[in-house]
Amino acid sequence: MTFQELVEQIKEKQSFLCIGLDADLSKIPKHLLSYQDPVAEFNRQIVNACEEFCVAFKPNTAFYEASGVKGWQTLQTTFEFLPKNCFSIADAKRGDIGNTSAAYAKAFFDQKNSGFNFDAVTVAPYMGADSVKPFLTFENKWVILLALTSNDSASDFQLIENKEGEKIYQQVLKTASSWGGKEQLMFVIGATRPEYLIEVRKIVPENFLLVPGVGAQGGSLQEVAKYGMNQHIGLLVNASRSIIFASDREDFAEAARMEAKKIQLEMKILLETYHK
Amino acid sequence: MTFQELVEQIKEKQSFLCIGLDADLSKIPKHLLSYQDPVAEFNRQIVNACEEFCVAFKPNTAFYEASGVKGWQTLQTTFEFLPKNCFSIADAKRGDIGNTSAAYAKAFFDQKNSGFNFDAVTVAPYMGADSVKPFLTFENKWVILLALTSNDSASDFQLIENKEGEKIYQQVLKTASSWGGKEQLMFVIGATRPEYLIEVRKIVPENFLLVPGVGAQGGSLQEVAKYGMNQHIGLLVNASRSIIFASDREDFAEAARMEAKKIQLEMKILLETYHK
Repeated sequence: MTFQELVEQIKEKQSFLCIGLDADLSKIPKHLLSYQDPVAEFNRQIVNACEEFCVAFKPNTAFYEASGVKGWQTLQTTFEFLPKNCFSIADAKRGDIGNTSAAYAKAFFDQKNSGFNFDAVTVAPYMGADSVKPFLTFENKWVILLALTSNDSASDFQLIENKEGEKIYQQVLKTASSWGGKEQLMFVIGATRPEYLIEVRKIVPENFLLVPGVGAQGGSLQEVAKYGMNQHIGLLVNASRSIIFASDREDFAEAARMEAKKIQLEMKILLETYHK
Repeated sequence: MTFQELVEQIKEKQSFLCIGLDADLSKIPKHLLSYQDPVAEFNRQIVNACEEFCVAFKPNTAFYEASGVKGWQTLQTTFEFLPKNCFSIADAKRGDIGNTSAAYAKAFFDQKNSGFNFDAVTVAPYMGADSVKPFLTFENKWVILLALTSNDSASDFQLIENKEGEKIYQQVLKTASSWGGKEQLMFVIGATRPEYLIEVRKIVPENFLLVPGVGAQGGSLQEVAKYGMNQHIGLLVNASRSIIFASDREDFAEAARMEAKKIQLEMKILLETYHK
């Protein structure tokens, strides 16, 4: 999906919601356990119930790998029913030396080899340019680079300052901006630190930001929109558990839909307020 | 495998060689393509031919994921024939927020869930403590944390200095040392920068180091031993392509064996020279 197509989807749906498909067997409603692939069935019902209110789906590979080969098959099945008009993100946080990152890029972007054709993959920046660039050789595919994450220990390394008082996450934003443009590169910016959004926007005014940490992790959607939105909207805000586990009963899909709709309505108001 | 068992294996085999199982269909000898799972057969023959001369095997998950579900099955098959007296490393460079890293830990350590029971997994440090600690809750399992990698662009972020002139990779070593001891925590230190080994050993004198970049990537084994070895040996040196692709013909396993044996003989001399 191109930059322009993504922006159009957001405007059409009046939503910049991304839904994280992070389920595992122990957390899904018990009545699904009779299905051959219960997690895939859970995802299918969640996707069908919520797609009207979101523009992106983001399975995190960890929850699939935890079940080995069977889990990887569930990820494949899930990928295949993701709606074509939704932006698809493999939240994999990969990154390795050049030829190895090229193999990871194949894993998520090269359907002929791997079965997957995601729009984007999340990548960790620690190994620098040559760990990220192989992903950028695919046309209309995106790297979503970790910059400032939403977890408590993000401060362990991401907030270390160099001699000029610049934090590591700021240098990640600056350095990475030379690797690709706003059409291929997004950044993960945790919403639990909304005051940093001002800093982020000074460095990357144009790029999309993928913002986790709204909902279960406690960030404020209103603050994210206020400080993070740009002239192309430039935001994807993720919620996972607060939507997909809204109910653990037979009504789980309907409950998820209601939750997604509630966020979409809030986003509609925020778009009217902050996107000028 | 425990710290003591690993040290004993190294002494017994007079080798601290780790072999990277990083094959893909395009690189293995053509005569294997008639097998049902050519890469698994390639790995099986490499493992059988080389296990006498190495103490560890390290499949890099990227090369398996590149083939999707089928590739993940190849990784499973490969895992199952790794010799029990060899240290097994899933070179996966994972890392995510706490509950998600816990799922990754299950993926590589919890055989009941995932089919895998690796001794160790490589982990990226960018997200800090809570992305690493879930892996350390498994008994006799290891985290091998990226510190200073062997690729050119390692310098993009790993060599940034803070106000006290300390580089990021040094802070990774220091901070991570409070998360676990030498029995659970190793560090990846690229051999293309042997002068840094002196710095590394000042910070982590006791821990094992996993050293890539000897062989195809050009590092010197002798320098690694001279500056990196400690009283428990404390080194695993990895070679991948220089061994597994030593020949692309029917003699590939024998050629790999010769290459592994050559390195083991060099290691034997280095152990006699530097391990006192």
